[in-house]
Amino acid sequence: MKIDIFNHVMPMRYLEMLKQHSKDAGIVKRMTNLRMLWDIEARVAMLREKFQDVRQVLTLGLPPPELLGGPDFSPELARIANDGMAEMCRKWPQEFPAFVASLPMNNISAALEEMDRAIGKLGARGIQICTSVAGRPLDDAEFLPVFERATNHHDVAIWMHPVRLASRADYPNEPKSKYGIWQVLGCPFKTRVGMARIVFSGMFVTLPKLRIITHHCARVNA
Amino acid sequence: MKIDIFNHVMPMRYLEMLKQHSKDAGIVKRMTNLRMLWDIEARVAMLREKFQDVRQVLTLGLPPPELLGGPDFSPELARIANDGMAEMCRKWPQEFPAFVASLPMNNISAALEEMDRAIGKLGARGIQICTSVAGRPLDDAEFLPVFERATNHHDVAIWMHPVRLASRADYPNEPKSKYGIWQVLGCPFKTRVGMARIVFSGMFVTLPKLRIITHHCARVNA
Repeated sequence: MKIDIFNHVMPMRYLEMLKQHSKDAGIVKRMTNLRMLWDIEARVAMLREKFQDVRQVLTLGLPPPELLGGPDFSPELARIANDGMAEMCRKWPQEFPAFVASLPMNNISAALEEMDRAIGKLGARGIQICTSVAGRPLDDAEFLPVFERATNHHDVAIWMHPVRLASRADYPNEPKSKYGIWQVLGCPFKTRVGMARIVFSGMFVTLPKLRIITHHCARVNA
Repeated sequence: MKIDIFNHVMPMRYLEMLKQHSKDAGIVKRMTNLRMLWDIEARVAMLREKFQDVRQVLTLGLPPPELLGGPDFSPELARIANDGMAEMCRKWPQEFPAFVASLPMNNISAALEEMDRAIGKLGARGIQICTSVAGRPLDDAEFLPVFERATNHHDVAIWMHPVRLASRADYPNEPKSKYGIWQVLGCPFKTRVGMARIVFSGMFVTLPKLRIITHHCARVNA
């Protein structure tokens, strides 16, 4: 059996929110075009036909709630995402043994509440954060309660997803990144930077039981 | 015998130019503090005492001529750098079997002339370029004659040095990079991006004999 522990989905209601509220046409197109991200019946059929030995731990694809809505709206977006992933796990427990909660990281008290709800009531087995929270580094003191609660209270791991905008050019005189560099090279770089900040800021000293899962097998949409 | 093929020096006259003309106080301080970069007699003494089996192929440390002077001045800066490195090789041929020429990349006709002079008259065994030319990518058509001449006319390799400013923050809300991330993680990232551009723009198809040497064992000055 192979367990893919960092697999993305996008619950249909979250995709609808993305289409309605995103100001980034590029990511709406990218996510809409990736049918296996949101057509979960098709995904299950594919798994049953071609990948019988694969299990998928579900996480939300980008953008995270805090990049899609302000602090008043992001908590609802996180609930929509987590309810949607919990439902997939209930419906297809064989294929999807677990999911990981997304949080509204621009509203920390709501993020802590949603963490408790998603883990306590929906059965989430961890939380997902991005390598930056709307541009801010993860060792910003405001975010420590999230790491602390996940680690010391819930004893779950933290899945870290790289964020780098496709619009971010690799050279200052260019309008955008070429050849998918922003993703294939830029995302692992963001993960390295994010982890370096967590290590050198001493977060593993503050929270000795902290566990972080990084990933990113990128594909380029030519 | 160990041959370090990507070792930096800074000829004293180039260091003086750096002190006089650089607008970046940080790099002046960094380079001035690295005595083994410009006190070559002390370096040779160190090599003879502690590293008898090491040979060093010399290249210029940052900044390159085009980041220190405009197109009217950078050719002189490149000549100062190359004359200085050639002299080190003449004086200590055992320790320094070869050097690699720096070029004024913001003045391409002068860069081609200096390449010819440094290789033909001074005995340079290659050229050094940075991963960007004052912010511009290396697959910019203007730079192709430099790659073409080094490869097809002189048949020498191209040493590629990463450039990333210490002032470049890792997160947009911060004034500068922390923990040396810009260098230890940022420089290898710049090398990857620079090589990706050369590969995907087809430069190895245009110039099948093109050879590029990348490197960067970074140290952090705490």
